Amino acid sequence: MKKVSESFSYGGKQLVYSHHSSVNDCEMTFAIFLPPIEKKAPVLWYLSGLTCSYQNVMEKGEYRKKAAELGMVLICPDTSPRGDNVPDEKDNWQFGSGAGFYLDATVAPYNTNYNMYTYITKELPKLIEENFDFDMSRQSIFGHSMGGHGALVIALRNSTKYKSCSAFAPIVEPISASWSSEAFKKYIGPDRFAWELYDSVSLVKNGYVFPEILIDQGEADDFLNEGLKPWLFSEACNNSSINLQLRMQPNYDHSYYFISTFMEEHLVWHRERI
Amino acid sequence: MKKVSESFSYGGKQLVYSHHSSVNDCEMTFAIFLPPIEKKAPVLWYLSGLTCSYQNVMEKGEYRKKAAELGMVLICPDTSPRGDNVPDEKDNWQFGSGAGFYLDATVAPYNTNYNMYTYITKELPKLIEENFDFDMSRQSIFGHSMGGHGALVIALRNSTKYKSCSAFAPIVEPISASWSSEAFKKYIGPDRFAWELYDSVSLVKNGYVFPEILIDQGEADDFLNEGLKPWLFSEACNNSSINLQLRMQPNYDHSYYFISTFMEEHLVWHRERI
Repeated sequence: MKKVSESFSYGGKQLVYSHHSSVNDCEMTFAIFLPPIEKKAPVLWYLSGLTCSYQNVMEKGEYRKKAAELGMVLICPDTSPRGDNVPDEKDNWQFGSGAGFYLDATVAPYNTNYNMYTYITKELPKLIEENFDFDMSRQSIFGHSMGGHGALVIALRNSTKYKSCSAFAPIVEPISASWSSEAFKKYIGPDRFAWELYDSVSLVKNGYVFPEILIDQGEADDFLNEGLKPWLFSEACNNSSINLQLRMQPNYDHSYYFISTFMEEHLVWHRERI
Repeated sequence: MKKVSESFSYGGKQLVYSHHSSVNDCEMTFAIFLPPIEKKAPVLWYLSGLTCSYQNVMEKGEYRKKAAELGMVLICPDTSPRGDNVPDEKDNWQFGSGAGFYLDATVAPYNTNYNMYTYITKELPKLIEENFDFDMSRQSIFGHSMGGHGALVIALRNSTKYKSCSAFAPIVEPISASWSSEAFKKYIGPDRFAWELYDSVSLVKNGYVFPEILIDQGEADDFLNEGLKPWLFSEACNNSSINLQLRMQPNYDHSYYFISTFMEEHLVWHRERI
C-alpha cells in the first residue's frame, strides 16, 4: 500500500492510497477518511457513480465533519480498474473505465480486470484489516447512482456482513436501464439469470433481504424516469420483509449538490445502526 | 447575465452565471449561493487563490449548509479575466489566467483586461444589485491565499463598505513574496509606491485600518515561511488599531481540507458582524 496524499481535516485525516489489486490485475486507488479517534472505529463504505473515481465524493461529498464527530471511518474506492493494460472503450462513459458496475465480469477480455464485486467485498476489506486497527465487525455501505446499485446489491447478497445500507438515487434495476444493460451484456454475457445477481430488484424478487434500507431520490433528477425508477425497488420491497424508506426530495437533481445536502443524515442513520 | 447552471442545495440554490465584464473586457463567470430566503439577505464575498476559478470553493468549500442556515448569500468570483483575447503566460501559474491578484493593471497589454480590483469592488456588486434583491448595505469579504490577500486589501481600502473581513492563509505581503512580486512588476510596473496599494502589510503601516480581522493559518502549510508569513501582518496590526485574531492551526495544510474545516466558523464570525 502506497500513500498518495494526506491532509488534516476536521481533526481527522483525509488519506489516499494506491495498491496492486490481484482480482483486478492493476493498480487501484482509494480514499480513506480517519476520524480523530480511529482505533476500533466502525467502517462505512461509499461507492461512487458512473464516470467518477474515488475523488468526486472526497472533494464534493461533505462527509468529513459529521464522520469526524460520529467517529466513523469512510472508505471511498474507485469505480473500476484502470490503466494502459486494462481493456476499455475510451469514448463510452457507460462501459469500462469509470463504469465497473460493481460486478465480476465473466466474459474475456474483461474478466481479467473487471472484478469490482470481489474487490469491494473481499480484497479491499482484507487490505484494510491488515493495515489498520478498525472494528471490521462493524461495516456499513452506501453509494450514489451506479454506486447506489453497488451498495444495494452488495448489502442484499451479504446481509450479515453489513450492518446498514443506504443509497442516493440508485440504479435499482440495471438489467433494464439503458445505461447499464449494454455493459452487463459485455461484462457477463447474454445469460439473464447471471445478470440478476447484480440487480437489486431481481434479488429482492428472488428472496434476498436486508432489514432496513434508506434511499434519497431527487425529484428534479434528469435520470429519474429513464434509468433510476426507484418505484420498481419500492414495489419489490413491498412484497418482502425489507423495511424501505424511500424519500423523494423535491427540486434536487442527480449531482453532489443533492448528495452533500443529505450526506449528514445518511451518516447519522448508519451510525445508529452500525 | 446568462445562467450557466442551477442546482438545489441545502434548501437553497447554487447558481453559476456568466456576463460580459466591461472593466476586464471579457466574459466573466461567477458562482452564487442563494439561501432559502434570499430577499434582503446579506452578501458575503469569497475570493479564491492562485490557479483557482469560481469552481474550487463551490465544489470543495463546504459553505452551503451553514450559509443556508444563517441566511447569507455567498458570491464566488473568478480569479482573473480569461479568454483567447486576454494576454496570458500559459505555463506560468503565478501570472495571467488564475493569477489576477485582485489589482488593476496599469502596464500594457495587461491593463486592458486585468482589472480585478475594480471588478470585485464596483462592477460585480453593481451587476448583483441590479439583478437580485439582497441587502447590499450589508456586505462582508473573505478569501484564501491570493484571495485572502484580495480580501484584506479590499477591506482595508473600503473599510466602510464591508462589515467584516477574514482570511484563510492569506498572502499578506505580496510585494515581497516570490510568487507575487514578479506578477506585480508586470501588472503595475516598477514603482513600488503603486505596489503598496495592493499590499496589506504596507496598507496597515500606511495607516489604513479595519476594526477586526480573523485569519486562520495552517502550521503544516508548505507556503507558510516563504510566501505567507502571517506574522508580518500581525506585527503591522500591533502598531495600529486593528484587532487581529490570528489563529495558527496545528497540522493543517494549504488545501481545501483546511479551508472547509474552518469555513463554518468564518461564516458564523461574519454573520455576527454583518
